[in-house]
Amino acid sequence: MMPRLVPRWPVWLFCWRAACVQGASVRQRMWAGPSRIPGLGGLRGVWGTGPLVRRGSSSASSRAPEVTLTPERYPVRRLPFSVVSEDDLAALEHIVPGRVITDPEELEAPNVDWLRMVRGSSKVLLRPRTTQEVAHILRYCHERNLAVNPQGGNTGMVGGSTPVFDEIIVSTALMNQVLSFHDVSGVLVCQAGCVLEALSQYVEERGFVMPLDLGAKGSCHIGGNVATNAGGLRFLRYGSLRGTVLGLEVVLANGTVLNCLTSLRKDNTGYDLKQLFIGSEGTLGVITAVSILCPPKPSAVNVAFLGCPGFAEVLQTFRTCRAMLGEILSAFEFMDAECMKLVRLHLGLSCPVQESPFYVLVETAGSGPGHDAEKLDRFLEQVLDSGLVTDGTLGSDERRIKMLWALRERITEALSCDGYVYKYDLSLPLDRLYDLVGDLRARLGPSAKRVVGYGHLGDGNLHLNVTAETFSASLLGTLEPYVYEWTAGQRGSVSAEHGLGFRKKDVLGYSKPPEALQLMRQLKALLDPKGILNPYKTLPTHI
Amino acid sequence: MMPRLVPRWPVWLFCWRAACVQGASVRQRMWAGPSRIPGLGGLRGVWGTGPLVRRGSSSASSRAPEVTLTPERYPVRRLPFSVVSEDDLAALEHIVPGRVITDPEELEAPNVDWLRMVRGSSKVLLRPRTTQEVAHILRYCHERNLAVNPQGGNTGMVGGSTPVFDEIIVSTALMNQVLSFHDVSGVLVCQAGCVLEALSQYVEERGFVMPLDLGAKGSCHIGGNVATNAGGLRFLRYGSLRGTVLGLEVVLANGTVLNCLTSLRKDNTGYDLKQLFIGSEGTLGVITAVSILCPPKPSAVNVAFLGCPGFAEVLQTFRTCRAMLGEILSAFEFMDAECMKLVRLHLGLSCPVQESPFYVLVETAGSGPGHDAEKLDRFLEQVLDSGLVTDGTLGSDERRIKMLWALRERITEALSCDGYVYKYDLSLPLDRLYDLVGDLRARLGPSAKRVVGYGHLGDGNLHLNVTAETFSASLLGTLEPYVYEWTAGQRGSVSAEHGLGFRKKDVLGYSKPPEALQLMRQLKALLDPKGILNPYKTLPTHI
Repeated sequence: MMPRLVPRWPVWLFCWRAACVQGASVRQRMWAGPSRIPGLGGLRGVWGTGPLVRRGSSSASSRAPEVTLTPERYPVRRLPFSVVSEDDLAALEHIVPGRVITDPEELEAPNVDWLRMVRGSSKVLLRPRTTQEVAHILRYCHERNLAVNPQGGNTGMVGGSTPVFDEIIVSTALMNQVLSFHDVSGVLVCQAGCVLEALSQYVEERGFVMPLDLGAKGSCHIGGNVATNAGGLRFLRYGSLRGTVLGLEVVLANGTVLNCLTSLRKDNTGYDLKQLFIGSEGTLGVITAVSILCPPKPSAVNVAFLGCPGFAEVLQTFRTCRAMLGEILSAFEFMDAECMKLVRLHLGLSCPVQESPFYVLVETAGSGPGHDAEKLDRFLEQVLDSGLVTDGTLGSDERRIKMLWALRERITEALSCDGYVYKYDLSLPLDRLYDLVGDLRARLGPSAKRVVGYGHLGDGNLHLNVTAETFSASLLGTLEPYVYEWTAGQRGSVSAEHGLGFRKKDVLGYSKPPEALQLMRQLKALLDPKGILNPYKTLPTHI
Repeated sequence: MMPRLVPRWPVWLFCWRAACVQGASVRQRMWAGPSRIPGLGGLRGVWGTGPLVRRGSSSASSRAPEVTLTPERYPVRRLPFSVVSEDDLAALEHIVPGRVITDPEELEAPNVDWLRMVRGSSKVLLRPRTTQEVAHILRYCHERNLAVNPQGGNTGMVGGSTPVFDEIIVSTALMNQVLSFHDVSGVLVCQAGCVLEALSQYVEERGFVMPLDLGAKGSCHIGGNVATNAGGLRFLRYGSLRGTVLGLEVVLANGTVLNCLTSLRKDNTGYDLKQLFIGSEGTLGVITAVSILCPPKPSAVNVAFLGCPGFAEVLQTFRTCRAMLGEILSAFEFMDAECMKLVRLHLGLSCPVQESPFYVLVETAGSGPGHDAEKLDRFLEQVLDSGLVTDGTLGSDERRIKMLWALRERITEALSCDGYVYKYDLSLPLDRLYDLVGDLRARLGPSAKRVVGYGHLGDGNLHLNVTAETFSASLLGTLEPYVYEWTAGQRGSVSAEHGLGFRKKDVLGYSKPPEALQLMRQLKALLDPKGILNPYKTLPTHI
């Protein structure tokens, strides 16, 4: 189709459309692949000068100030579990020979979460390699009444992956083998400790993609992703892990191995037990292997980064986008002007479009490069003509796609550089998604350094963050329970994708009725009667 | 793109491609909509002369011979539940005034499943209108130890929706209200008794489609669909109900109302309790309302009906299809030559292509009519040129799309006309999907009238059916446990989408390990300690 060139369009779009005319309309773009953040290293000269932080990295912790011990900051009491004895260490050494870690220095990083908000005092970390080893460990701990903290990449956002007191850390780091991959069905079966980025690379080499992608991919483990029911950047396209995870192998609290590691898309034989463990944050069982359905790798990926004059226009851009891009829409993310200031200030990233109150990142992924480009072209024409979008730029190759994604993906990192961060991860009705941000700015005034909003708009998921120079109990008191009450008032969720872990467990009641909390407690009692699995997490202290 | 016309192509493709050249390449086709089977009535003069059967229809039962009482055909003993007394009837009348049915004639249809394989002897059917009424009924039955059989459209395939003995039938037929629909997010919230077809029509008028579609849509209830975790014809595109159901309201065995009727795409607050009830066939709770995410209605739908020379070519056609149609592929169904004979013989349908050993139905659904047509064009060129497909026809308008779908959708109906049917619904690895059909033909010889295979190939789901003039214990003995053992040998599932209900409950162990069965039994005991909810279903008699 010959595009109609309109002079008032910004230069970037003009150039892009001109390129289409010159025969570049069938553009084969690389899927923004597994090394998105790490790969940015080489581009920092142009795009960023800030530190490159990997979640779960222990190197960061050695430079940073000490994190307050969790029981000193939060009101929590140790439950009457046994304390690890020398005899226990000897028995555990027998189960995982040479892989019982007791060196305090080595234990420093796994005791602290990557956000540096909570710190446990575990004296033992175990590194099993097999499911049977995990089973032996849990059987032993169950008999001895020893508490256990399962740990993947330790990239969680709510303190769910670190011990609260002296729980034994069972790390999946050495359980990192791909068990099988079927190159027609796209079903991947692997151990729980495989790093998401490594899996992405593995399946992409075979013409598929992982159905989930998130900023922490360089460190997070697939078992941890499943245990937290991670959402992330591809949720809009491929949906929840509850649909894409086909099977799980789980070790129960008493050491029983529950093998539901099927590779079948459909299986209606009895209750779907694996669902119990997806999103239960290691409190009902330890996931040791995952079977997951990988969609075919799209042959064309485009990213548009757009500036919008207001949130109403952001919403209208989303509606237009869904109608015009249909099945090729793979992500619709938004961030406000404050987020852009943050990534510029702390990471040295440049805004690629004119400054705007809001920015939107639209990704398409499809099987027909020419068709996708035409659809995107029409969509951009529409949103620019109607004034919904005032400026924008397009990612037309892998490097540029990564650059544009970095603006959105590295906000969390930039926030961490801004001071103490009060983090909220909310599901809200689309029409009210941003209201709370403005409301809080007015409410907090100068007591907050910054109030920012960004997130997965296509999924109704707002990441609301408030920064301050240091932790302030007074500011916290102004924020909570206000934020939770406001969210409950909208029938929203006080944890859209991060889970509850340790830090959010007591707010569960804002999103679930008492009958649900009661049933959750009964399930916990059924599956883990001694409560040894990831104690102090997920369920409220008092029900 | 100007198509290359190749004389050796069949006439149908020539005509279609020629039409594209004449300016019809941008074809707006109707989504094969809610009245697919009923709508065929007007077309039967051309396409079919057989009876039009609706699942769950009571009119059919009045003509058909008596169905043997379940306890007379199957080895099952009544559990020690109370028997409904006059006092009970008075109490129930108080809860649902005027909606306590005890007329034996009215009770005839709900006591028999639509396949006419099982028959209960319930003396009471209740028709609540509200969740509170369901809660009062269950609280009463729980206290009185009265067994309950929740019933939706009574369209199940495994005897899960009819009483086995004298359980009280609790029908959702009057719980048929849409509670809300959001025309941006596409989230529908409705009572459990809404008929799927009515919901389809409702959301299609608003620019969306239901994420599931199945042959029984004219009778089945959405609550029953969720309770059986129905798969159906759109599974390949929109995935499992475990991903698309956002929330449920459920009444527990003791009458507690569990309100998890959220409309949020993401909600990681605690354990996802609704998953317990999806696919648990009414044995853990009675679903009273459903919140479900409806995808936008595609603006273009195409159906190609193709003949393939062998099953290897069917598989290769699927691979080609996935690669070339990508995100617009919405269904890939197959049927063998015996199925075509059946729909011709019993329903009078005509084969629209040259007779072939196998037939494939490919549906595309997308947002760009011209783009979709081009993709389909290239795909058809490829499979015809390579000999994977020998003949085919294309559905280019609503009427023809319905006709082509009828060939696949009405196989079940045609089978019912062929005699007694032994039905198997298996998940198998794609490469071995059809092996069992040939194997059984050789094994059974003339003792079977017909052995046919069809199903949702794109989901790895084979419907294997064996017909005989009448029920034969000897034939059953040759089929079972052979079919289940063969399936277990392939690590397949003995129930892909139909569930276990009453008739398949004892084969659960072929697809799940003893540890899983044990946990299922524990869950049942936790949620329904008296076992009053849909007894004799889902879980094996002896574990």
